[in-house]
Amino acid sequence: MYYTDGKLQYTVRVDSPNPLFARQLQQAIGGIEGEIRVAMQYFFQAWGSRGPRKYRDLLLNTATEELAHIEMLSTAVALNLEGGGKAVSKGVDSSNPAIQSMLGGINQKSYLSSGNNAMPIDSDGVPFDMSHIYASGNLAADMYANVAAESTGRLLATRLYELTDDPGMKDMLSFLIARDAMHQQQWLAVIEELGGTQALPIPNSFPEEQQNEEFAYAFVSTAIDGAPVPQGRWSEGPSLDGRSEFHTMAAEPIGGEPELSTPPKESYAQAEQMAGGPGQSDQLGSRQPSQMGGGAMEKVKDALS
Amino acid sequence: MYYTDGKLQYTVRVDSPNPLFARQLQQAIGGIEGEIRVAMQYFFQAWGSRGPRKYRDLLLNTATEELAHIEMLSTAVALNLEGGGKAVSKGVDSSNPAIQSMLGGINQKSYLSSGNNAMPIDSDGVPFDMSHIYASGNLAADMYANVAAESTGRLLATRLYELTDDPGMKDMLSFLIARDAMHQQQWLAVIEELGGTQALPIPNSFPEEQQNEEFAYAFVSTAIDGAPVPQGRWSEGPSLDGRSEFHTMAAEPIGGEPELSTPPKESYAQAEQMAGGPGQSDQLGSRQPSQMGGGAMEKVKDALS
Amino acid sequence: MYYTDGKLQYTVRVDSPNPLFARQLQQAIGGIEGEIRVAMQYFFQAWGSRGPRKYRDLLLNTATEELAHIEMLSTAVALNLEGGGKAVSKGVDSSNPAIQSMLGGINQKSYLSSGNNAMPIDSDGVPFDMSHIYASGNLAADMYANVAAESTGRLLATRLYELTDDPGMKDMLSFLIARDAMHQQQWLAVIEELGGTQALPIPNSFPEEQQNEEFAYAFVSTAIDGAPVPQGRWSEGPSLDGRSEFHTMAAEPIGGEPELSTPPKESYAQAEQMAGGPGQSDQLGSRQPSQMGGGAMEKVKDALS
Amino acid sequence: MYYTDGKLQYTVRVDSPNPLFARQLQQAIGGIEGEIRVAMQYFFQAWGSRGPRKYRDLLLNTATEELAHIEMLSTAVALNLEGGGKAVSKGVDSSNPAIQSMLGGINQKSYLSSGNNAMPIDSDGVPFDMSHIYASGNLAADMYANVAAESTGRLLATRLYELTDDPGMKDMLSFLIARDAMHQQQWLAVIEELGGTQALPIPNSFPEEQQNEEFAYAFVSTAIDGAPVPQGRWSEGPSLDGRSEFHTMAAEPIGGEPELSTPPKESYAQAEQMAGGPGQSDQLGSRQPSQMGGGAMEKVKDALS
Amino acid sequence: MYYTDGKLQYTVRVDSPNPLFARQLQQAIGGIEGEIRVAMQYFFQAWGSRGPRKYRDLLLNTATEELAHIEMLSTAVALNLEGGGKAVSKGVDSSNPAIQSMLGGINQKSYLSSGNNAMPIDSDGVPFDMSHIYASGNLAADMYANVAAESTGRLLATRLYELTDDPGMKDMLSFLIARDAMHQQQWLAVIEELGGTQALPIPNSFPEEQQNEEFAYAFVSTAIDGAPVPQGRWSEGPSLDGRSEFHTMAAEPIGGEPELSTPPKESYAQAEQMAGGPGQSDQLGSRQPSQMGGGAMEKVKDALS
Amino acid sequence: MYYTDGKLQYTVRVDSPNPLFARQLQQAIGGIEGEIRVAMQYFFQAWGSRGPRKYRDLLLNTATEELAHIEMLSTAVALNLEGGGKAVSKGVDSSNPAIQSMLGGINQKSYLSSGNNAMPIDSDGVPFDMSHIYASGNLAADMYANVAAESTGRLLATRLYELTDDPGMKDMLSFLIARDAMHQQQWLAVIEELGGTQALPIPNSFPEEQQNEEFAYAFVSTAIDGAPVPQGRWSEGPSLDGRSEFHTMAAEPIGGEPELSTPPKESYAQAEQMAGGPGQSDQLGSRQPSQMGGGAMEKVKDALS
Repeated sequence: MYYTDGKLQYTVRVDSPNPLFARQLQQAIGGIEGEIRVAMQYFFQAWGSRGPRKYRDLLLNTATEELAHIEMLSTAVALNLEGGGKAVSKGVDSSNPAIQSMLGGINQKSYLSSGNNAMPIDSDGVPFDMSHIYASGNLAADMYANVAAESTGRLLATRLYELTDDPGMKDMLSFLIARDAMHQQQWLAVIEELGGTQALPIPNSFPEEQQNEEFAYAFVSTAIDGAPVPQGRWSEGPSLDGRSEFHTMAAEPIGGEPELSTPPKESYAQAEQMAGGPGQSDQLGSRQPSQMGGGAMEKVKDALS
Repeated sequence: MYYTDGKLQYTVRVDSPNPLFARQLQQAIGGIEGEIRVAMQYFFQAWGSRGPRKYRDLLLNTATEELAHIEMLSTAVALNLEGGGKAVSKGVDSSNPAIQSMLGGINQKSYLSSGNNAMPIDSDGVPFDMSHIYASGNLAADMYANVAAESTGRLLATRLYELTDDPGMKDMLSFLIARDAMHQQQWLAVIEELGGTQALPIPNSFPEEQQNEEFAYAFVSTAIDGAPVPQGRWSEGPSLDGRSEFHTMAAEPIGGEPELSTPPKESYAQAEQMAGGPGQSDQLGSRQPSQMGGGAMEKVKDALS
Repeated sequence: MYYTDGKLQYTVRVDSPNPLFARQLQQAIGGIEGEIRVAMQYFFQAWGSRGPRKYRDLLLNTATEELAHIEMLSTAVALNLEGGGKAVSKGVDSSNPAIQSMLGGINQKSYLSSGNNAMPIDSDGVPFDMSHIYASGNLAADMYANVAAESTGRLLATRLYELTDDPGMKDMLSFLIARDAMHQQQWLAVIEELGGTQALPIPNSFPEEQQNEEFAYAFVSTAIDGAPVPQGRWSEGPSLDGRSEFHTMAAEPIGGEPELSTPPKESYAQAEQMAGGPGQSDQLGSRQPSQMGGGAMEKVKDALS
Repeated sequence: MYYTDGKLQYTVRVDSPNPLFARQLQQAIGGIEGEIRVAMQYFFQAWGSRGPRKYRDLLLNTATEELAHIEMLSTAVALNLEGGGKAVSKGVDSSNPAIQSMLGGINQKSYLSSGNNAMPIDSDGVPFDMSHIYASGNLAADMYANVAAESTGRLLATRLYELTDDPGMKDMLSFLIARDAMHQQQWLAVIEELGGTQALPIPNSFPEEQQNEEFAYAFVSTAIDGAPVPQGRWSEGPSLDGRSEFHTMAAEPIGGEPELSTPPKESYAQAEQMAGGPGQSDQLGSRQPSQMGGGAMEKVKDALS
Repeated sequence: MYYTDGKLQYTVRVDSPNPLFARQLQQAIGGIEGEIRVAMQYFFQAWGSRGPRKYRDLLLNTATEELAHIEMLSTAVALNLEGGGKAVSKGVDSSNPAIQSMLGGINQKSYLSSGNNAMPIDSDGVPFDMSHIYASGNLAADMYANVAAESTGRLLATRLYELTDDPGMKDMLSFLIARDAMHQQQWLAVIEELGGTQALPIPNSFPEEQQNEEFAYAFVSTAIDGAPVPQGRWSEGPSLDGRSEFHTMAAEPIGGEPELSTPPKESYAQAEQMAGGPGQSDQLGSRQPSQMGGGAMEKVKDALS
Repeated sequence: MYYTDGKLQYTVRVDSPNPLFARQLQQAIGGIEGEIRVAMQYFFQAWGSRGPRKYRDLLLNTATEELAHIEMLSTAVALNLEGGGKAVSKGVDSSNPAIQSMLGGINQKSYLSSGNNAMPIDSDGVPFDMSHIYASGNLAADMYANVAAESTGRLLATRLYELTDDPGMKDMLSFLIARDAMHQQQWLAVIEELGGTQALPIPNSFPEEQQNEEFAYAFVSTAIDGAPVPQGRWSEGPSLDGRSEFHTMAAEPIGGEPELSTPPKESYAQAEQMAGGPGQSDQLGSRQPSQMGGGAMEKVKDALS
């Protein structure tokens, strides 16, 4: 359960309202690397947390903090849009980039749909879509998703920092950039607790013998023409999990050509398709026999007869 | 540029076609943790690769391999759907889970829209959306996104393995599970080359002094009521980047209450809203003065006068 | 800013786990009438609140409560899915509707993507999309959107109540149904404070004389063929705002036929389109002259010459 | 069934084509508060109308009218884009806001994808998504959704009115603003016929005794720290439905901590998660016993043993 | 402008309500090949029609007819769902496929969100998205899009015909199948009027000399390994437009390797990326010089200095 | 399976980087008529190909080529964005349209989310959605979808050609325009092999006698008021399939008024709806008896009793 005090986690001050920057800040609210994403991702991971209780608490605490970040950013957008409406209708002062952004059609939805406030959209006006919430049920997989989210999140915040000269906005971003740095570390700390690279592969609870080990430590090159295989930590030496050696292999078609059955009558393919399925030797030429399961094919033929 | 030989990277054999399993396999094609996602993610990372050339080559090789995985899975879906159409219309053999799945309405779009073939949709029929392609321009951030993708991808493959008894399908999944294990390791190997946790925070090219250091190593607890702060690797001891010490702090509202201006005339708020903005002491009561930027407020008042 | 105590607002008890009901509960989490929608809608309305401060507080309090509802429902989904995984793989007890739902392919994504937990999706597996967050900047418009959300929300909860026999689930829904009833009333109470129907139309700050009054109180019938115009409170008697009388009128084409210019060269229409624009009398026949702005047409002709 | 005369419901005249305004008008076509939304919403409500026939007729008449509004707006967009193409390529007259909008990248999709015509997108180019069609089967809930749609729709139209100086466009909007005013009233008139606030809560057909009455008239405050509860029509006095008294209560966690089971084997959580579920006293500390259903927990333990 | 008589274009009769079939019919309403798509596509093509007026009239007439088809199908869905609600809660008669579909979780949203009516969703519950409306401004391109829509539409209708034994439903589909046949022909008739294949390529108004003619009639084979090039009407003989001869060529990389600049400072790539761009000979090896524009590279270097 | 040589199919050279043109090129990558669409569409058609093997080979070859086109365009976007980042922060040279586009807010996501690279989005920043992949299982239907895709694709490329003066970009587009011309012809060549218009209607495998022939060759006019029916190749003369004669008929409501049952109790409609269903003569007036299936109605009444 949740409580509020109606206050902001950190000061949000805008010295010079700038509608263009308002639009750019939207990426940090409704972008795929934004705060709605991390807040909801951590909430759903917490609400479905199974296993050591401390991880549920950890997730819940940080999710609740991220909610305060959306609040800060939404306040920042609203403050940057103050005075924005007039610019649209009057069109004066065209040397001001902020005003130009309104004349240029930016922030239209912010005015038209929300009356100069923040919206759950990205910097192009695309609404956030909750399919970006990763909560897989595997703690290590989720932690990597969280590190990725905080890495792109901090990257975004540094780019936003680059785009503004407003001291208030720089101060706010300096705080958010620090929080994202900590959050990267805290999720990696969980991974370290879980064994780090020694606990690879994820999931580590799947029986090792059911994995095709021949392909588990091989870099597969799909390069054509004798082009060189990229060399690095991944191409030779001990694997990161310490259980084998990395090596490389050229990609090869082990599977042969796929061979689907003729379209069934009830799929209403064109008549010409049904006449021309497998077995038409003049069309197939001298192809090698498929390595696919004849069993399935036989069954279909039975079913159709 | 790309080339094809029309063959499968690994054998795809279905001994007992199972439309329900076809639907489940769709998650590995069009799910957010599926193969379209990794193929396109690695392609876009490669096409925008800036910096050491070997990483572009690495990404391009693996992207091209993932394309072959979509092909394998699409073939597997098609083979599992063979004979499917008849089940829909005839409705016999209700003790067979596969048939029941058709009667139950599963795989309808696969029949209705594609004539019993794979589609770029997930196991609930939701089409894949390319906003899931992460290519941030920062190699470390991208590598973590790739590890997350391969971790959820392998997790999905193990769950699919659990759901089938078909030897052909188990064999194919055993191969894909191995490839995902290698891909986890190869992206982590790049991170190791880049310095591992020593290179935190991501991005490491942002000037450290512009980050609010006070909050960069602190776990912030939003717990109420004297509830205990979750303790772990993240709450004390040296930070993962080796530059500081982790510590904890209770969340506190540094920012005060947000204070937005009265709605501007041209936003067409209700008349009652415009009459009741900041300064109406009877409505605001004895709130403490906001810590927000008065400068912005003054500007707006000027603009409206 | 926000705080949590890690506890549930109301008891969530599942006596008989039922994966089918888990799927149905998803509609109350990620459906368009679900709890994510109201939580985020009230948050964004609060964060952009301009005007009397008490409404910001009101919205913030209820938004925070709704967050606790998502938490309750997510817990309920997880509990209903416990034991679900085995059903998928073993397929026993086919007379149990819950098990049949797994065999029938329901809840696949819940297992495949989240390991038997709640997801921000609806009962068909479609992710929630934040374009459903209405925060217009006009308090009355927003309140009606909120009443609509709570009305469809309570409707959904009653339908869910109908679908379960589990005493724990019925108890939880009985609580949520009550909360939605209160929330309907509280948003309508704001509307009453703002003047109720006397404050129509929304927005009431737009100058009345700039509205085409001739059409502001008329029910327009588009019925053909002498079909009767539907009669009711809207077709005669004083208008709800007390300023005029309702009346009815038959739809009539005041605007004439639209007349667009020939495609410009740079739009690369087919050559035949460019040859056949306005002015080709044999194709236009004896149409009446358009009432559209000749001025625009002239300008375009000038521009093209 | 439907018929057309190929004419416009009201005059659409553009004196000075303005591509920026074309883009802004798109919000009224494909925005969530636009005309496609109301047209399709009323059609689906009509097509599924059950109950007094006059409401089906009412909805059908107005849906058909709204279709004519999309036609008017599409014509207006096309006329505002006439001449637009050349501006993109030539880039002259940079003091003209309309031309600047093309240089600034606005309306690109309108040219690139539609050859200077209207599209079913909003002012940021996001396509309309039919999940916004509300047709719940409960007439009162639907009417509130309709009032909300017409309120945000009229609000949008007034903002568009503010953004143009074109006499033809102002005249068209003056008409649409009037129609939205009437539509607000006509849907509220249906609510009045259904009993108005006396018919609360929606749905009124759910048995009152199955609602948890203790929470049905209480404003729940989630404020922390002795912050004042917002006072208003919703916090005391008779409820709007006349059946009880409003009162307030502080939010309290009645439900205790949620307690999910250890991850099942087949969810392939990390091994460390499975080892650390409920019962690990050192990790749980001295938490109070959960109030959640032990029955479910027992069942799961049985299932796993 | 549009009118209605409240009647159905063709008889909609359901002899045996079948909720499973209701769900399948949804594909014809809200699927990408469904009736919402064609109705809105033809409307937008008509509203933006430029060129011979008869094509606007043609499109408008058929769009209006398609609206009546959505109405018919929505009525059919509602009738197939009658009685559906009880099945969900009672769960009797499990040998009935229709009932099983409810138990299996199908049609949940139809009940939960719409009270047993049609919704603008497909057979998997995914809402229709208006990005599927093709109206390009080029009449020939649009006509091919229309033929494609009617071809997949008729295909869908034949598959639905296969899935039902209900005489009323078969009769309705028999009508819709006929309409789609006619609509295929009528759009192809427009193409014939425009010159058929002689008018290729589309658009035919683009100056021929600005096309790279060397590649305009060549089938490019990307096959590897001496695999045979597929032979057919496209590989030799006169081209369809009569202006040249078809021939084949093997794909060859004319463009060399792409060479992007080192990441700019303000993109906050990892420090290691910035150090390792083009020019680092040890990483690049003996690659051939890129054929990309050095001019751009020089400019960037200047800009960074 | 697939291979790569890391090279570009055709030269990509940018002489004058132009961020605005980068944004416009995005339409050709992630727009609905872009290269991701055709690549994935042809791949899915190939992977599900049933019938003559040569068509699978044909599709696979061209799909693989299209992948190289995405690569070319992504390279072109990256090159056009080089130097773009500085423009955003410095804001100099406002007479340069490219710089203005950055100030105007264009390409923000390209910088904020991808560090100045291509993304799988359209020119308005909307991500590509894989529901646009058409692979129906009927070869003729798919070929028409392919022609439509290549027609809108070439149209887009010609419009892009119009928007740039960069010789490198014009050269690249000249190549892509030629490829789209060939691809239009090659898919039409398949249709010719399948019989052309003689093979209509699609699907041609559906039994002709199950189609309502009365409506299969009639243009249905929905025009009101004696407006003339549009005349053309579609309104008289032999049908394109050579089996009948085209004729016209006025739309007529054969189906009567739809008559749905009263809402079932468990749908929780408002009480007033349930009281007012069919049979309430005072509300229905003297409507003619519906022609809908009484059988269904009777069944529902039985079910409710």
